[in-house]
Amino acid sequence: MKNEKTERTPINQIENHIGEEIKISGFVQTIRNQGKIKFLIIRDVSGTIQTVASDLPKEETDLIDSLSMESVVEIIGTAKKEAQAPGGVEISIRKISVLSEAETPLPIPVVNKAGEEVDPQKRLDWRWLDLRKPSNTLIFKVWTLMEQSFREYLIANNFIEIHSPKLMSSPSETGAELFEVKYFDRKAYLAQSPQFYKQMAMASGFEKVFEVGPVFRADPSFTSRHATEFTGYDLEFSYIESHQDVMNLEQNLIRYIIEKIKEKYGEDIKKYFNRELTIPEIPFPQITMEEAKEILKKLKVPSEKEGDFSPEEERAVSDYIKKEENHEFVFVTEYPADARPFYHMRLDDNPKLTKSFDLLWDGLEITTGAQREHRYDILVKQAKEKGMSLEPIQFYLNFFRYGCPPHGGLGVGPARMMMKMLNLANIREATYLYRGVKRLEP
Amino acid sequence: MKNEKTERTPINQIENHIGEEIKISGFVQTIRNQGKIKFLIIRDVSGTIQTVASDLPKEETDLIDSLSMESVVEIIGTAKKEAQAPGGVEISIRKISVLSEAETPLPIPVVNKAGEEVDPQKRLDWRWLDLRKPSNTLIFKVWTLMEQSFREYLIANNFIEIHSPKLMSSPSETGAELFEVKYFDRKAYLAQSPQFYKQMAMASGFEKVFEVGPVFRADPSFTSRHATEFTGYDLEFSYIESHQDVMNLEQNLIRYIIEKIKEKYGEDIKKYFNRELTIPEIPFPQITMEEAKEILKKLKVPSEKEGDFSPEEERAVSDYIKKEENHEFVFVTEYPADARPFYHMRLDDNPKLTKSFDLLWDGLEITTGAQREHRYDILVKQAKEKGMSLEPIQFYLNFFRYGCPPHGGLGVGPARMMMKMLNLANIREATYLYRGVKRLEP
Repeated sequence: MKNEKTERTPINQIENHIGEEIKISGFVQTIRNQGKIKFLIIRDVSGTIQTVASDLPKEETDLIDSLSMESVVEIIGTAKKEAQAPGGVEISIRKISVLSEAETPLPIPVVNKAGEEVDPQKRLDWRWLDLRKPSNTLIFKVWTLMEQSFREYLIANNFIEIHSPKLMSSPSETGAELFEVKYFDRKAYLAQSPQFYKQMAMASGFEKVFEVGPVFRADPSFTSRHATEFTGYDLEFSYIESHQDVMNLEQNLIRYIIEKIKEKYGEDIKKYFNRELTIPEIPFPQITMEEAKEILKKLKVPSEKEGDFSPEEERAVSDYIKKEENHEFVFVTEYPADARPFYHMRLDDNPKLTKSFDLLWDGLEITTGAQREHRYDILVKQAKEKGMSLEPIQFYLNFFRYGCPPHGGLGVGPARMMMKMLNLANIREATYLYRGVKRLEP
Repeated sequence: MKNEKTERTPINQIENHIGEEIKISGFVQTIRNQGKIKFLIIRDVSGTIQTVASDLPKEETDLIDSLSMESVVEIIGTAKKEAQAPGGVEISIRKISVLSEAETPLPIPVVNKAGEEVDPQKRLDWRWLDLRKPSNTLIFKVWTLMEQSFREYLIANNFIEIHSPKLMSSPSETGAELFEVKYFDRKAYLAQSPQFYKQMAMASGFEKVFEVGPVFRADPSFTSRHATEFTGYDLEFSYIESHQDVMNLEQNLIRYIIEKIKEKYGEDIKKYFNRELTIPEIPFPQITMEEAKEILKKLKVPSEKEGDFSPEEERAVSDYIKKEENHEFVFVTEYPADARPFYHMRLDDNPKLTKSFDLLWDGLEITTGAQREHRYDILVKQAKEKGMSLEPIQFYLNFFRYGCPPHGGLGVGPARMMMKMLNLANIREATYLYRGVKRLEP
């Protein structure tokens, strides 16, 4: 059978081959054995198709009778119009062979029964079975396009793609939530962000860079939006006037990504996630942290911390903007220096506030950005003010000693973007293989 | 001066603005002070330009007199044709301001004097100054296009991009050369490759996936082609007949990448690296390991190990193919099972040999690939034969229990590709920030 030289036809292309003998392969999603007539629903990455077996030799019939769900099969047969079949097309089987036999029973279902809920931990334990659901596969098709559009936009704007090291001799940000690595006869740490190294590219004269890569946070929290390892999108560029330039770039970038996704997957997203994607108007709404806190006070939302938002406050700010300006996005700017890292540049006329911003999408923070302080003396002063010891960050401070253009940048959380784009309740749904405090497997 | 609303002009665009007043910004590469007339060579990411100052107010003149090399400046002036200037164009300065002042002296030169050699360790210590050299910046522009072309080709062929976790509870390959991470109250390990997790995508029915990400090897060697952390390109796809399908894809992919790079950067690569890129003919030459060893024997190249090549043997094989077939690439196939991991599929007619290959480019191994064993029982048997304990890899073996299509894939080392593409002698030149046994900084 393996010698049949027919090319494999993707299931979503079958309608272009009505009347022809074709070869398909995929997982056996459903088996309906009505004695002389047997129906198999076959699923590949592109879709599902009904196949039907009748009047076959005993060998084939026995094979179908012994088939287990989710086995992988190859089928040769004729594509036919059939009004009764889902999608109006079916394949009449001539030959079937098993490429890989599945054990029974399956530890979790691939196709849930109506109303069936599976324990989320079991879904993570058997992640690859869970990912076979067309809705879950769609998440990663959309992710692929999101990332492609992200890069496409930046490369068209002359950005250079870098891969900075994840092994560092000292903490990249605060020193908290750091994973320690045994590195030959010394210690190393896993990078919590490419922050320092994307800024190094500015000191290298690369002018515009971006990076897509893993970031590591030894964060013991168990929320729906945190993980110990996740993918980060980072960019940084030179010769800006202020953080406004960074926000301007980001709103164009995000609009571009959403346009691309709506164009290709808008219908699928509506079908599987009941989410109608909206192309966001430019400019995105923008308020200062101070203004936001005023609004929250008027709305009587309890404030947990100064200079930053609780999740409840984030949702309230987004709801307010949605109501007032009918926009899913809002930039919150000018965070107080106390709440921001030492390398954020301060406002010229008020050193207590930073040239920084967060971007909220429908109540979820998806970006932190800022103009960076590129003047060595001021940077050192700001680090000291934060009570930092200079020695472990001297390698970073050195980047600013031999000429470094003014610059700024941002980090985006793509899994959080996926949550908002597809109405996902938990970051684990948007992560290929989630890593958390208690989760290192599979 | 910062309020001058002129848009910044990239230096390689100046020739389109002859007679206009423009704004440029960049690093001060050279200062030639001839008293009343002062010449500054300014460098941005796109090129260099001569600027000239004469008859300026005292303020500007004093500023130029006190300028240090590699400071970052903004210049407003008129673009003019000038036969004496390099490139035939110069800017007559009206205003100049310093955006960032460089300390003197520089720890390493950005522009080497003729014949000047800088200690390689010092170059790595001050990597961001070294990266300012136009030839070094070019490496990362070419890398950006290489990676873009890699993704473009695969996405056009319906590949899904994944990001698999780098934190694992057990070793991904052999167990040797593994970095250990303190993970809350237990241990984790850094992934040596996305091998297991890209295969999981096959069990998930994704059919075709690729990944670009860091891989970690606690390899104590100090060669010109090893690093403890480097970027890997990986791909895996389903429903193949044999490893030949994987090689077929790779040769098309590599040809596509080289075509794109030659088209955009061929001239620059010739200028800076004295390398004339050749578009490789398809199919790439292909020999079995056994044939290769026969040839090496005839050529009297000493053989260090069975079933694999020493660096000297790799060079000899490539030289032979170059001479006989005038091709820079050669696939070496059918490595003995002893020399390959347990998950490589064996030949149907000779279980001592694997359905595997390496790709050599001009004497350097840039790829390992294979068809994988997707049959659970055989996979378990092969792991046992290698003396492996099953418990730590059971999470991986499980991927094959509930249906998994036949599949294969490969890993490519992009830094090694850059070495061959640009005639670089050391992988450190092709790495943004090199990591080695003794090198975790900057």
